[in-house]
Amino acid sequence: MALASTETTTTSLDFGPAVALSCRECGARSPLGPDFACTECFGPLEIAYEFPRVTREQIAAGPANIWRYRALLPVPADVASKRNMAPGWTKLVKADNLARELGLRSLHVKDDSGNPTHSFKDRVVAIAVEAARNFGFHTLSCSSTGNLAGAVTAAAARAGLDACVFIPSDLEQAKIVMASVYGGRLVAIDGSYDDVNRFCSELIGDELGDRWGFVNVNLRPYYAEGSKTLAYEIAEQLGWRLPEQIIVPVASGSQLTKIDKGFKELVSLGLVEDRPYKIFAAQAEGCSPVSAAYKAGHDVIRPVKPDTIAKSLAIGNPADGPYVLDIARRTGGAVEDVTDAEIVDAIRLLARTEGVFAETAGGVTVGVLRKLVAEGRLDPDAETVVLNTGEGLKTLDAVADHARPTAVIRPSLDAFRAALA
Amino acid sequence: MALASTETTTTSLDFGPAVALSCRECGARSPLGPDFACTECFGPLEIAYEFPRVTREQIAAGPANIWRYRALLPVPADVASKRNMAPGWTKLVKADNLARELGLRSLHVKDDSGNPTHSFKDRVVAIAVEAARNFGFHTLSCSSTGNLAGAVTAAAARAGLDACVFIPSDLEQAKIVMASVYGGRLVAIDGSYDDVNRFCSELIGDELGDRWGFVNVNLRPYYAEGSKTLAYEIAEQLGWRLPEQIIVPVASGSQLTKIDKGFKELVSLGLVEDRPYKIFAAQAEGCSPVSAAYKAGHDVIRPVKPDTIAKSLAIGNPADGPYVLDIARRTGGAVEDVTDAEIVDAIRLLARTEGVFAETAGGVTVGVLRKLVAEGRLDPDAETVVLNTGEGLKTLDAVADHARPTAVIRPSLDAFRAALA
Repeated sequence: MALASTETTTTSLDFGPAVALSCRECGARSPLGPDFACTECFGPLEIAYEFPRVTREQIAAGPANIWRYRALLPVPADVASKRNMAPGWTKLVKADNLARELGLRSLHVKDDSGNPTHSFKDRVVAIAVEAARNFGFHTLSCSSTGNLAGAVTAAAARAGLDACVFIPSDLEQAKIVMASVYGGRLVAIDGSYDDVNRFCSELIGDELGDRWGFVNVNLRPYYAEGSKTLAYEIAEQLGWRLPEQIIVPVASGSQLTKIDKGFKELVSLGLVEDRPYKIFAAQAEGCSPVSAAYKAGHDVIRPVKPDTIAKSLAIGNPADGPYVLDIARRTGGAVEDVTDAEIVDAIRLLARTEGVFAETAGGVTVGVLRKLVAEGRLDPDAETVVLNTGEGLKTLDAVADHARPTAVIRPSLDAFRAALA
Repeated sequence: MALASTETTTTSLDFGPAVALSCRECGARSPLGPDFACTECFGPLEIAYEFPRVTREQIAAGPANIWRYRALLPVPADVASKRNMAPGWTKLVKADNLARELGLRSLHVKDDSGNPTHSFKDRVVAIAVEAARNFGFHTLSCSSTGNLAGAVTAAAARAGLDACVFIPSDLEQAKIVMASVYGGRLVAIDGSYDDVNRFCSELIGDELGDRWGFVNVNLRPYYAEGSKTLAYEIAEQLGWRLPEQIIVPVASGSQLTKIDKGFKELVSLGLVEDRPYKIFAAQAEGCSPVSAAYKAGHDVIRPVKPDTIAKSLAIGNPADGPYVLDIARRTGGAVEDVTDAEIVDAIRLLARTEGVFAETAGGVTVGVLRKLVAEGRLDPDAETVVLNTGEGLKTLDAVADHARPTAVIRPSLDAFRAALA
């Protein structure tokens, strides 16, 4: 790790407004390199910036993808002209039908199934690709619960990098096919995501992984910043306004912490008015270590062995779990979980009210939204946003039993009449 | 049909710049109604417009969806504020890797998998929904090879309309699940798409289908106009310039004719410079009635019984086939077909070069592109666009045999080393 850092900083790096790595625990600063843990205290590193003056007009004049926010991301100024997937600027769907059904005044669905590989992971990977280029890495890698593997292999194909990605062997077929169709190597590991993740940490210290950019390990500080764009887009699409309540899924917890960071940056840059917002974290009951800690009033997360249909959220030992607890408590939100049956119901509810077909992670957030409203823990009059971070086509089995033809008939009016009766 | 037309024209219709229906064969005009065949000659009806003056700046100031072109479509001026899927403005991917591999100077992929239900059908359905609203229809319906059924049921859910859609019973599971998850009725018919289509034509004359808007039958003139937005977007995304060569898939042929119409409108409105373009039509060998007619030098299409993995293009009796022949010949293009094996190869080629995972219809267009280049029938120096009209996740089986993990291992470096060896 230290070696790679020394090698690469001799070349000319261009990370735009990013100026250093900074420890989230002790605040110690280090140069921008492929590093992820503080050499002082082993705390997680994140990006420190010196932002230029940025106006709404400059942003609005940018492309219809995350690069409209390039001045707020660790990427070079000419990033939009490079070969990358140009994700983001997904729809913020005004969900009047669902709002009415739940009894909410104002509800939007941020629908990240519109990204190139149909999950929010395209956002984070796009930033990691620029970091990999900066550090001269030839291979893009990751541990993945499925969506990330596809996002990495697709982005590597477009960028002209090699890919070697690692997944648990029990994933949905759609995610396996998607992760391998773009070329590169897809290695399935007999074990849980947490086993895959531990394996990748070993690999990164081995010569086998030399010059590899593991997007969610040694490129993690860069990668994670991609999730800030969800916050930026939601605020801009609301008309440069922070939502009052937002429901975010929790796997590692990184996305939620970066949405909070993104909102705070918009305030400090004067791009939105400072108003209170509550962040609600959503987990599947079958993998709810953060929700369990929240309910027990604990500050530490006790790892669990996941058992849920929401495989993209099945991280039993979430790295950013403690930060999620902090943010939910600080903002007046909450952490809640729903059962697999509630996830399926919520997928179907969102589909039949808004025409949005979410993957299981979207069932988790919409299910938690519904639960919180029913229990009176959400303000029905406050402007609310719920995230759908993935695509229903990738988790068909979740709803397949409920999504069959109403009837199978011969092509005749009589047969149709009989089927209707 | 005539009755419905009389009833509805008594209410106040708002179709924006559209002023009449016009017969594509004899030119006879009739009022805007839910009609699809000329009462004089039974020719197909299309929309006649009186366009306002439209500037590039007005369009660019519009939303990032097809409604930026609302002044050129049969929709009310306030369409963007209504509950619809707001499709379009999908990516025009600069395909430098694929271009290099094929030996082309300039190639773009218009990637319509980015639409809300991940096919170009969201474009046409969005226009049909406005027509259904105008005519006071309560139920949205269609005959479909799969993608359209999902687009219709999703759009109906968002718009608050009932849906009842018809598909052949042998479709891909992903398309069946998607078409039913949004609610409404999904009726599978034992037979081919052409059987389904004939059934719908019967149903439309029956009281069972009263007040139903069949998007591709009695709303077809409106519906079909949605495909013009592909032409508009490609030209705008190229920097307000027509491409010199474009490869378009052919099912019914409607999409191709409307892309040609869209290009011509842009020229006549002064939005782009008039320059020659060639339109190439792509079919699967297992359903290539238009390609067969083209190669034989015929003007009429002889219907076939489809047998191809490209089910979304499996229309054996394509209504607009003769117009496709005209356009391919007039513009100096061609009609070509590829085998199922070539389709699979082309899907994989596009995925590993550009990170775009196409459905089988995209394999058809990219396969035809490759074939035409190899045979010297495309100009390698001309600006070329190839369409991907759907999503690989919906036709997983096509590539599943070629898209498996490279290895399945225990989580250890030794196991990984052994797998690499």
